[in-house]
Amino acid sequence: MDTAGDDGGHGREGGVRFGVLDETSRMESRVALTPDMATRLAKLGVTCMVQEGAGVAASYRDEDYRKAGAQVCARQEILDQIDALGFIDRPSSELIKAIRPGTWVLGMLASLTDPDYLQELEGAGLVGLAMERLPRQLSSAQSMDEMSSQNSVMGYKAVLLAANEYGSFLPMMTTAAGTIRPAKVLVLGAGIAGLQAIGTAKRLGAVVTAYDVRPASRGEVESLGGKFLDLGLDFSQGQGEGGYARQLTVQEQSAQQAAVDGKAADFDIVITTAKVPGRKPPVLLTQAGVSNLHPGAVVVDCAASDLGGNVEGSRVGSFTTQGGVRIIGAPNLPSQVATTASNLLARNLADTLAHFLRQGRLSLDMTDELDQALVVAGCGQEPAPAAGSEEK
Amino acid sequence: MDTAGDDGGHGREGGVRFGVLDETSRMESRVALTPDMATRLAKLGVTCMVQEGAGVAASYRDEDYRKAGAQVCARQEILDQIDALGFIDRPSSELIKAIRPGTWVLGMLASLTDPDYLQELEGAGLVGLAMERLPRQLSSAQSMDEMSSQNSVMGYKAVLLAANEYGSFLPMMTTAAGTIRPAKVLVLGAGIAGLQAIGTAKRLGAVVTAYDVRPASRGEVESLGGKFLDLGLDFSQGQGEGGYARQLTVQEQSAQQAAVDGKAADFDIVITTAKVPGRKPPVLLTQAGVSNLHPGAVVVDCAASDLGGNVEGSRVGSFTTQGGVRIIGAPNLPSQVATTASNLLARNLADTLAHFLRQGRLSLDMTDELDQALVVAGCGQEPAPAAGSEEK
Repeated sequence: MDTAGDDGGHGREGGVRFGVLDETSRMESRVALTPDMATRLAKLGVTCMVQEGAGVAASYRDEDYRKAGAQVCARQEILDQIDALGFIDRPSSELIKAIRPGTWVLGMLASLTDPDYLQELEGAGLVGLAMERLPRQLSSAQSMDEMSSQNSVMGYKAVLLAANEYGSFLPMMTTAAGTIRPAKVLVLGAGIAGLQAIGTAKRLGAVVTAYDVRPASRGEVESLGGKFLDLGLDFSQGQGEGGYARQLTVQEQSAQQAAVDGKAADFDIVITTAKVPGRKPPVLLTQAGVSNLHPGAVVVDCAASDLGGNVEGSRVGSFTTQGGVRIIGAPNLPSQVATTASNLLARNLADTLAHFLRQGRLSLDMTDELDQALVVAGCGQEPAPAAGSEEK
Repeated sequence: MDTAGDDGGHGREGGVRFGVLDETSRMESRVALTPDMATRLAKLGVTCMVQEGAGVAASYRDEDYRKAGAQVCARQEILDQIDALGFIDRPSSELIKAIRPGTWVLGMLASLTDPDYLQELEGAGLVGLAMERLPRQLSSAQSMDEMSSQNSVMGYKAVLLAANEYGSFLPMMTTAAGTIRPAKVLVLGAGIAGLQAIGTAKRLGAVVTAYDVRPASRGEVESLGGKFLDLGLDFSQGQGEGGYARQLTVQEQSAQQAAVDGKAADFDIVITTAKVPGRKPPVLLTQAGVSNLHPGAVVVDCAASDLGGNVEGSRVGSFTTQGGVRIIGAPNLPSQVATTASNLLARNLADTLAHFLRQGRLSLDMTDELDQALVVAGCGQEPAPAAGSEEK
C-alpha cells in the first residue's frame, strides 16, 4: 500500500505533507507539532503544515513555525493538501468526513475501547495509526511512546498541583520560629506517572511512600528513594508460576483496599495515577480512605473522569470535603504543562511518522512489528487484539 | 504600667487572656493563633480565646483549639474579656473603638508609614506592639520575627506558583523522546524571601541566578548554589568608607537597570521579592525587561500592590502580555500557605507576648531594648524613629 503517490491533483510539489490542526480548547493546550519537529521532519523530506494559532497556548507562535520551515495555513488548506494528520486526541466523526480518503491519521484513537470508531476511519478510507497501541517493550519504539511521555508530565504536574494547593511546606524547614516537618506524600499507582511523582515530591523535600499492586514496583519505588507502603498483609501464599503474582481473591482485594484506606490517614498528600484511557479507572482510595485524611490534606486524582476516578467521590475539578480535605480531579494534566508536553508528544508523533517513511513515501509493511501494532484502519486487516498497555 | 490587673470586673479567673479574631477573607487565610501555641501559652499561665471558625481556612478546627485548652468564643465575648489581641494585620479604626482601653494589640501596625494610626491606638488607650519594628539583629528576638517567617513562606510559594504556571519542567529531564533542559530562574531581591526562592527553585532542579543591589548578597546567593547575576558593570570606584557601597549615581542606577532588563531575556521565570510594607516598592524589572522575555516566560511579582510592584505594569492578579509573558502579581503569598504561615506567625506573636509577661502579668519595661523597639502606643513615649527593617 502506498498513499503518498495518490496526490489526487492537489498541487503538491512532491514529498510527504504532514499537518496538524488547532486542537486547543479550555481543556487542551497542547499542539501535536512543535517548530523543532518541523525542522526535524523537513530533513526527512516532509513538509509540515500547521493551522494558524495552533501552538499559541503551548507558547509556540506562528512565526516560530515559519522560521522552522513549516507552513502556517488555514484549516481547510491543510485538509486539502496533507498526506498525514497528527492529533493529540483524535478527529471527531464530523472531521473524519472532511478528511480526504487515503490520508493517514496519527493520534490516540481509543482503538482498545471504541471499535465503532475504527469502522468510521475504515469507512472514510483513512489509514489509522493508534498511538495507544505502541509496543512499549520495543526499544526502537521508545521515542514514539506517547503514553510514557505524557504520563511522565502528568506525574510531575500532579505533585506541583498538590504542593501549590497544600497549606504547608513540602520540605522540612528549620526556622527561628520552629521546625516545620516535611510533608508526607502517598503515591498510589507506581507506573511512569507514579514514579515521576515520587521523584518530583522527593525533589521538593517531601517524605514519599508509594504503593502499587504489582509486586515488581517495590524495587522501582525504592530505587527512587521512596518507601513502599507496607500493608501488613501477606498474599505470597499460592504465588503464581515464575514468581508472577496470582490474581487476588475478592476477600484479599477487600483486605488490601481496607489497609490502603487505613494507612492513608498518615499522609498529607495523596496522588493517584492509575489512568486507563477510555475505561473506568480502578478505585485506589475509597470514601473511607478519604474520610481518614486530616483537614488540609490534598488529594490529586489523575484519573478523574465522567466514568469516575481512582478516588471514590472525586470529580473533574476541585472541591473540599466536609472533613476539610481538598480533592482535585485532574483528567488532563499534561495539557497544563503544554510546552514540554507538546515538545515530547510532537517528537513521539514525528518519530512514528518517520517510521512509515519508506523511500520518501508513506507506506505500510504489515510484516513489520510496529506496523502490525499501530495500524488499526486502512491496511485491509483487522487490528490485533488489545495488548496490556495500561498505565498503572 | 500594668494592665493585667485592670480586669474591670469581666469575671476573669486571673491570669492573662490572649485573644485572636477571625481575620479570614478572600485575601487572608491565616490565623494569628494555632492550637500548638495555645498549649504553649497555657503553660505560661495565659488563657487563649479564639473566635469561632477563625482557623478553618488554615486547616485548624475549633475542636483542635478546644483540645489544646483554648476557649472558642463569639467575637464580642473575646472583646469583652481579653487583655491582649493578636493580629495578622491590624485592627481597623472601627474595631479600635470596640476594644477596651488598656488592651494590648499585637500586629503589623504599619507604624513606619502611618503615624495617624498610632494616634488612634493612643487615643483609644490601647498598648500597641508593632511587629514590623522587631530588631532583627537581636538574637533573643529571632523567634518573634514575623517579617522573616512570612517572607520565607513568600519565597517558597513564589517558586511553586511560578513552577505551576510555567509550561515546561523546572528540572532537566532525559527521556526517550529527548532531553528537556532545566528552567532558568532569575530571582531579583535576595533577602529572606529571595534566598528561600533560590533554595526552592534549586530543589526543583532549576538553574538559578539572583541579583540584589546589596553587594554582600553575592556570598549568600552563592552559598545556596545560585549564580549571582553578572551585569558587566563596575561600580567599585569611589566605594564608601569601611567597604560599604556608596549610593549609586542616577546614571549608574539607570545603567544597572538597563543591564538587568537586558539580562532578563535569558530567563524563563523571574521572581521579584522586594516588598516594602506600606510603601511603593522599587521597580526591579521595567517594561523593557518584560518585553525581552520569551513567550511562555512567567513573572511572579511578590510586591504587586495598588501602589505598583517590582515589575513595571504588574498588578494584583494574573495576566498575559501581548508578548505571551505571564505576569502574576501576588501581594499576599503567605496567606496561600496558610497552615505553615499561621504556624510560624502564631509562634512569633506568642513569643512576643511571652516577652511582656512579667510576674504573670503583661507589663512594660521601657528600659528593655525590645520594649523600646516594639511599643508604639500606650507607653507614654513617642515611638522610636523608623529603623531600617525593610525586606530587600
